[in-house]
Amino acid sequence: MKYIFSGILGIFIFDNQFNLVEERRFQGLEDYKKRLSEEDKLKKRYKDWVEVPEEKLERVLSFFKDKKYFDGFYLNNLELTKQKVKESVSNDGLITQAVSNMGELDKMGNVFVKRLREWYSLYLPEFSKSLENNEKFVELVVKRSKSELLKEIRLKASESMGADLRREDVEEMLWLGREILNLYELKQKHEAYLTKMMKSYCPNLLELAGVGIGAKLIELGKGLKHLALLPSSTVQLLGAEKALFRHIKTGSASPKYGVIINHSIIQKAKKEDKGKAARMLADKLSLCIRLDFFKGEFKALEYRKELEKKF
Amino acid sequence: MKYIFSGILGIFIFDNQFNLVEERRFQGLEDYKKRLSEEDKLKKRYKDWVEVPEEKLERVLSFFKDKKYFDGFYLNNLELTKQKVKESVSNDGLITQAVSNMGELDKMGNVFVKRLREWYSLYLPEFSKSLENNEKFVELVVKRSKSELLKEIRLKASESMGADLRREDVEEMLWLGREILNLYELKQKHEAYLTKMMKSYCPNLLELAGVGIGAKLIELGKGLKHLALLPSSTVQLLGAEKALFRHIKTGSASPKYGVIINHSIIQKAKKEDKGKAARMLADKLSLCIRLDFFKGEFKALEYRKELEKKF
Repeated sequence: MKYIFSGILGIFIFDNQFNLVEERRFQGLEDYKKRLSEEDKLKKRYKDWVEVPEEKLERVLSFFKDKKYFDGFYLNNLELTKQKVKESVSNDGLITQAVSNMGELDKMGNVFVKRLREWYSLYLPEFSKSLENNEKFVELVVKRSKSELLKEIRLKASESMGADLRREDVEEMLWLGREILNLYELKQKHEAYLTKMMKSYCPNLLELAGVGIGAKLIELGKGLKHLALLPSSTVQLLGAEKALFRHIKTGSASPKYGVIINHSIIQKAKKEDKGKAARMLADKLSLCIRLDFFKGEFKALEYRKELEKKF
Repeated sequence: MKYIFSGILGIFIFDNQFNLVEERRFQGLEDYKKRLSEEDKLKKRYKDWVEVPEEKLERVLSFFKDKKYFDGFYLNNLELTKQKVKESVSNDGLITQAVSNMGELDKMGNVFVKRLREWYSLYLPEFSKSLENNEKFVELVVKRSKSELLKEIRLKASESMGADLRREDVEEMLWLGREILNLYELKQKHEAYLTKMMKSYCPNLLELAGVGIGAKLIELGKGLKHLALLPSSTVQLLGAEKALFRHIKTGSASPKYGVIINHSIIQKAKKEDKGKAARMLADKLSLCIRLDFFKGEFKALEYRKELEKKF
């Protein structure tokens, strides 16, 4: 009777007194990956093989206390761990980074627009006041001349309180404006990238939640797998942690929704229906997430129609 | 004897009973600007003119209580105010906006670099750790391939814990990197712009303080004029308001310097000399600011050499 034992170091054959009969050491990860076929070969040679029973395991392990095995253990383990780390970089990680950066681009964009509005107001203060939409404001400032903008707000140059600045003074503001447009464009690039990735990775979630909310849920849920394991009541409140803890600590009103608050279903629901809409949307989102994680069918469109009919 | 009275409305001639003899109404700012030559003409016609003495002023002013003058007052005043606002946009305002934006670009740049380091670490974690300098890091990430960077840190691809990502995943990070380089470039543009403007507006301050600290002082001092009126001990502490108020409220150590802390004179001074260096630097800066405001000679180079010899 021979005992066969395989691990990260290699495959080892012992006799019934636990003396080593044969060993096949792995030189690296490649050998380790082919361990099953190697084991089969050995099992054919030693027809009387058995697996090491649990009560004898200690005897086998004590065999490896010899220092000559330590380096092998260390190196093979290191290589295996690196491999695992490499493989753990999944779509989840990439989605999380991209959607986080979209949030930052939003914030930074707003700071820069505020600055541009202040700066440009030295030149044409009436224009900033006339246009609340930030993106539109930046675009017009960059692409139109002062006289065109004056026409836009029906003002003669002499009526404006803005100063007549040198070309180089204005150019400096326009550089800032162009930079803000670049930030907007980068956000759009991220959005297109996420849409493409999520279309194959989580098509149901993408369809029902939309790209922004969907990616945010994956970020907050720490990956699709973990998200799939959360109850739908938690999905409903992801992103509302602050309000939730405030509710628990101070007894203030409990939050009804987290990031899903921006979903059109909830936005369009009547005020008294919003709580119910959030609950039902979270239910369906949970289903979508599970369908995606377990590679199920595409049902999100059906769910969306169902919800839209209700609210 | 005739009284002559001129104001924003026009020029008015009264007889000694304060009945109107003649009026020249201004139609707009252009007339107002030419008021002196117009007055001279009238003074030639009415050789017996006198200015309205103070004790009679009330009688003249009561004349304008007639509602028919109200529109004229309103419109001419409005136009004049607009003109004044226009002219008040000075180099100070432009400098303040540009230097504030440089500060924001710094902050935003750091946020984005932090994000890029995290994101890129999914791809090649060992590289971020190997290079602390942010600008250098972004530049290399954008301009070199993964295999070039691996060589840089003397690592084989198999030894890295980074994942092998698709081209499109990496491209998304590189877009962020390129954006960060744009932000750096914009900061440099602002710096060149400020240097050029300050060279003619405040050459002494520029020479002794450098462009960053000099512009910051103008921002914190609310303009060159106001800055010129501040005592040098205040100039020394501009930008340290928080620490100063903490000192006053809690009795903590009083701050030694504000934004001038980054000046090379103070940076290079021995620890026990820093307070003294700050005081002397602020003294010289104050002189520079006053020279600049009163269009005095260029002495900053002399001051700088004096300080450099001392510390």
